Amino acid sequence: MKTLEIKELYRNGEKHYNQNIKVNGWIRTSRSSNAFGFMELNDGTFFKNIQVVLEGDILDNFKEITKLPISSSVYVEGVLVPTPDSKQPFELKAQKVVVEGVSSSEYPLQKKRHSLEYLRTIAHLRPRSNTFSAVFRVRSMAAFAIHKFFQEKGFVYTHTPIITGSDAEGAGEMFRLSTLDMSNPPRTEDGKIDFKEDFFGKETNLTVSGQLEGEAYALAFQKIYTFGPTFRAENSNTARHASEFWMIEPEIAFADLNDDMKLAEDMLKYVISYILENAPEEMAFFNSFIDKGLIEKLNNIVNSDFAHVTYTEAIELLEKSNKEFDYPVKWGIDLQTEHERYITEEIFKKPVFVTDYPKEIKAFYMRLSDDEKTVAAMDCLVPGVGEIIGGSQREERIDILERRIEELGLNKEDYWWYLELRKFGTTKHAGFGLGFERLIMYITGISNIRDVIPFPRTPNNADF
Amino acid sequence: MKTLEIKELYRNGEKHYNQNIKVNGWIRTSRSSNAFGFMELNDGTFFKNIQVVLEGDILDNFKEITKLPISSSVYVEGVLVPTPDSKQPFELKAQKVVVEGVSSSEYPLQKKRHSLEYLRTIAHLRPRSNTFSAVFRVRSMAAFAIHKFFQEKGFVYTHTPIITGSDAEGAGEMFRLSTLDMSNPPRTEDGKIDFKEDFFGKETNLTVSGQLEGEAYALAFQKIYTFGPTFRAENSNTARHASEFWMIEPEIAFADLNDDMKLAEDMLKYVISYILENAPEEMAFFNSFIDKGLIEKLNNIVNSDFAHVTYTEAIELLEKSNKEFDYPVKWGIDLQTEHERYITEEIFKKPVFVTDYPKEIKAFYMRLSDDEKTVAAMDCLVPGVGEIIGGSQREERIDILERRIEELGLNKEDYWWYLELRKFGTTKHAGFGLGFERLIMYITGISNIRDVIPFPRTPNNADF
Repeated sequence: MKTLEIKELYRNGEKHYNQNIKVNGWIRTSRSSNAFGFMELNDGTFFKNIQVVLEGDILDNFKEITKLPISSSVYVEGVLVPTPDSKQPFELKAQKVVVEGVSSSEYPLQKKRHSLEYLRTIAHLRPRSNTFSAVFRVRSMAAFAIHKFFQEKGFVYTHTPIITGSDAEGAGEMFRLSTLDMSNPPRTEDGKIDFKEDFFGKETNLTVSGQLEGEAYALAFQKIYTFGPTFRAENSNTARHASEFWMIEPEIAFADLNDDMKLAEDMLKYVISYILENAPEEMAFFNSFIDKGLIEKLNNIVNSDFAHVTYTEAIELLEKSNKEFDYPVKWGIDLQTEHERYITEEIFKKPVFVTDYPKEIKAFYMRLSDDEKTVAAMDCLVPGVGEIIGGSQREERIDILERRIEELGLNKEDYWWYLELRKFGTTKHAGFGLGFERLIMYITGISNIRDVIPFPRTPNNADF
Repeated sequence: MKTLEIKELYRNGEKHYNQNIKVNGWIRTSRSSNAFGFMELNDGTFFKNIQVVLEGDILDNFKEITKLPISSSVYVEGVLVPTPDSKQPFELKAQKVVVEGVSSSEYPLQKKRHSLEYLRTIAHLRPRSNTFSAVFRVRSMAAFAIHKFFQEKGFVYTHTPIITGSDAEGAGEMFRLSTLDMSNPPRTEDGKIDFKEDFFGKETNLTVSGQLEGEAYALAFQKIYTFGPTFRAENSNTARHASEFWMIEPEIAFADLNDDMKLAEDMLKYVISYILENAPEEMAFFNSFIDKGLIEKLNNIVNSDFAHVTYTEAIELLEKSNKEFDYPVKWGIDLQTEHERYITEEIFKKPVFVTDYPKEIKAFYMRLSDDEKTVAAMDCLVPGVGEIIGGSQREERIDILERRIEELGLNKEDYWWYLELRKFGTTKHAGFGLGFERLIMYITGISNIRDVIPFPRTPNNADF
């Protein structure tokens, strides 16, 4: 008798009705009287449990198994019986139950509801709870949907380096890595740390973005994407920031900002549709227990054409709104989350691309517009979150790129290979970055980034 | 007129014969006389180029474009004409050529063949060469094949942490990360570095494996896999070692070593079949220019049942062979590459699983066998490479696991949550690790790991 997965039973149950089958799993709940008992078994393959019926007359170890603590693991053989009158489509009438691992009464995930904060302290057990079972299955599916989207379009998945010798992207504070003896590091004649003696022969850090290396690959393969971990050593304890997170960065050549926005919109719609279609049970759970309007909100994203507005127009709209913002609005400011959410939630009531930002608030590599004041940047704002994607057309003109590097006081030598991409067959190109955890928060309605990462890393926290 | 990709032309050429089409790309080669010229254009979407025919009578910028340096980027409009008598199936008779980016005569990838060593120094340009175009497209496809394989079987893709607070796996030397001022770090009263002041409030390193965290998730989801970067701060400059590499680590619950080996064999066959089917041009190139017997070797893998032998039997076979090894054979040694290759290439002539290794040469978490001398470990050896996969059934019995941790002088407190997995519903489980780069080397025939990683990191090298 082959062991069947609970997912198979829920998806193709009729095929197995009134047949002898075998399942395994962990006990989620159990109750019993002297001669009769029930347990809900979850085998990890599906969001839902199977109800197992235990009868004292049939099972010689009835007493043992009805006393098993929650989360004990068992093998069950029995007959799958349809139950048209109850909430569940079927139940399993056990003929034999073999105990695999006996749990303990100290098991912390008992029936009562725990706070998400508490569950973070048992990150090794929380995927066994309904919420995290749903979150991390959706996370897995969304990752695959992203790969599928890009691979089907012929994009080349590029593993850009995690360890980097430069802060070339300039996106933020970095983690330094080293194998030097910190207690007594080698020093140069002038007393500085001698990183020439370090593992890589120079100072190295954890990457904040694979974009620059991604550009090199886009100028060979035309269409590439990265999907890997990135790091920020920022001491910010917010619900939206983690020190380690995964990022997707596509880069396309022979393409401009419009192509870039089209790609971003298509990608978001694809991933959301994929999840709605492939994780209906998990999404129904989130919609009931995490965020009441979630599915409607996501359907709205899939079915609407994203709006487009320039930064300059957006500033005018915010000014005209007469709304009191904490952070006053005027041309030149970096849009804050309150502004972004007002634009997408109140003004447009759907996702919006804001384009053509002042060059002063954007990175050196973004393409300078003819007005010399703005750059061909775009941020995608979505209701409930604000910015979810940031991208730009890249500066492909070597003279302007060099000028921008100098204007910003960066060191041209550090960018020798990046500049060479413009020297040897430069091409119009563009790309964007999507924070994977932000996307998962958006899709699941979960509001703290710590609850969408299996073992989150934040300031003062690298447990497990 | 929509721009067509060169891949589309090669896959569905007839559909576009004798029609006006538009392509873009970078010039790979070009030659011309006064009135007539050819250029080979590559747009990055496909391994092969398209031949463009240039006629002085038709193109008013004929002189300009025939003088363009290699790697300049252009847009071409013209008629796609079948050429049944020539090597290529078709050519594009240009009606209009627009120059996008003029390259320079200093472009280093000229027609002459460069050594792979030299190409490593121009890692930002080498994906434009035939060899690396093929390698990195295959790398991308293989990554996707791995995701596809596991997702279709219902495995949950789990992002285990990159930053870790412990060397719990004990697999090797690690990179420490820190944001402390290395010149003048805070110290405790007894003069040691005070890592309580560091970003995470303790000493942290880059992960060497996601296995232990993966086990936590397998005991919730039954079937999980990781696919992410891992790090080794080992000062070994070999063709097979990199400091940063990607690893796939599946973990399955309610499963033993046999299930584990079956999964490994199925996975390898799936990925190799996927590449043979989806990258025929690249594989033909490798078979011609990198490794003459490659395709035959891979077909052999796909079509053979892997052999199985215990470590003890393998040692006997090696002893009986009377072959002189550099490293003498006797029960208890760790098998060296020379032994592994002899076993798979000479004795079995196909992939082999070697199982049941002495516990002394394997990790603490592997399941102790009844003989108390060996553990339920398996290594998968393949011809031409040696070990490509290492795995084991994990010790699910808490008392034995605790004993093994003590025997090896490890600190039980560091493993509190790992031990709890055995306390709260322990379950037979198993898993393995596959070094992604080793797999790519195997599939492509490329013999240096530096040539299958876009921007490799090795001792004294973190360029780009």
